[in-house]
Amino acid sequence: MESERFAKQMEFIVKIDELKSVIRQTALVDGSRQENVAEHSWHIAVMALLLTEYANTEGLDQLRVLKMLLLHDVVEVIAGDTFLYDDDSRVDQESREREAAGRIFGILPSDQAEELHGIWNEFEAQRTPEAMFAKALDALQPVVLGYANRGWSWRTHSIKKQEVLDHKKSMAKGSEYLWAYVQDLLKKAVNEGILKE
Amino acid sequence: MESERFAKQMEFIVKIDELKSVIRQTALVDGSRQENVAEHSWHIAVMALLLTEYANTEGLDQLRVLKMLLLHDVVEVIAGDTFLYDDDSRVDQESREREAAGRIFGILPSDQAEELHGIWNEFEAQRTPEAMFAKALDALQPVVLGYANRGWSWRTHSIKKQEVLDHKKSMAKGSEYLWAYVQDLLKKAVNEGILKE
Repeated sequence: MESERFAKQMEFIVKIDELKSVIRQTALVDGSRQENVAEHSWHIAVMALLLTEYANTEGLDQLRVLKMLLLHDVVEVIAGDTFLYDDDSRVDQESREREAAGRIFGILPSDQAEELHGIWNEFEAQRTPEAMFAKALDALQPVVLGYANRGWSWRTHSIKKQEVLDHKKSMAKGSEYLWAYVQDLLKKAVNEGILKE
Repeated sequence: MESERFAKQMEFIVKIDELKSVIRQTALVDGSRQENVAEHSWHIAVMALLLTEYANTEGLDQLRVLKMLLLHDVVEVIAGDTFLYDDDSRVDQESREREAAGRIFGILPSDQAEELHGIWNEFEAQRTPEAMFAKALDALQPVVLGYANRGWSWRTHSIKKQEVLDHKKSMAKGSEYLWAYVQDLLKKAVNEGILKE
């Protein structure tokens, strides 16, 4: 009974299970272990359900934002996770991920491959309000976890406040409100000794 | 700058991080470890993006399906995960989860608490096409993982094919197609010796 189309869809679904084993440089709130990409993607998708009112643009297509957040890191099944503060491995990140996107979405039936690859490209290009808001949530989440777990990642990697600000400032394009919140949170983190000035 | 409303939203976001530590009785495809609820929720949300064409009802509200899948297990932050085949702990599952839903969604500002609690209730009630399709995906995913990881959970808990069928048959209400697929997959699993007849 299984059609070729359905087989391709199931192959993709089984393949992306590997995202649960791609480890990020962010720890859980309780600091017990590092977060993986699948969990992170779920977390920011739920954040999108709650925080859309803080987007710079009103009337965002919420379904489109969710699709981007659920899929934005799927390429890491092939390309691995690139730590935001690792400038060496970020050099060829774009080309590695672009090639990975072709391979991973290429598993799907062509209509779905085209649609989802398009969603991924839209997120990467950062030109639509949906992409910019999705990116703001993607940038916000590790800061929220970092503050809650007393700076696990900042301390582990000796990261300074200015580095965080430099890497996060583009989130203002998606949400001035959330960017102001991040700046406040980082100030508090410095005052509490869990992030270097 | 932080409003009371925003503080409540962030409290919820930090609280549900605990879902990453609620462990299910399903292993990853590679069998390396058991899956947690946050990862599971992400996986079935991506499945919803790909498999809507197999729903019994055409023209489903995809955003509503995604909201249900992202939130359906949030109550397990308080109530814990209840194994489908554990009849003892399933006795009071409904009342435990109902009480947990009130507490967890009650963290949110009242308008969002009402909306998301409503989404959760809709999933639980299993009366709308969106809820029935979401439930079919929730039931399908562990079978797909179980077949791929050579019956980790079925072997660990000595589960028989008929028990799986009994617990999964309601998924036909959401998708006859996916239910037929599950029946096929379980037959294959028996033939390959990873599930008892």
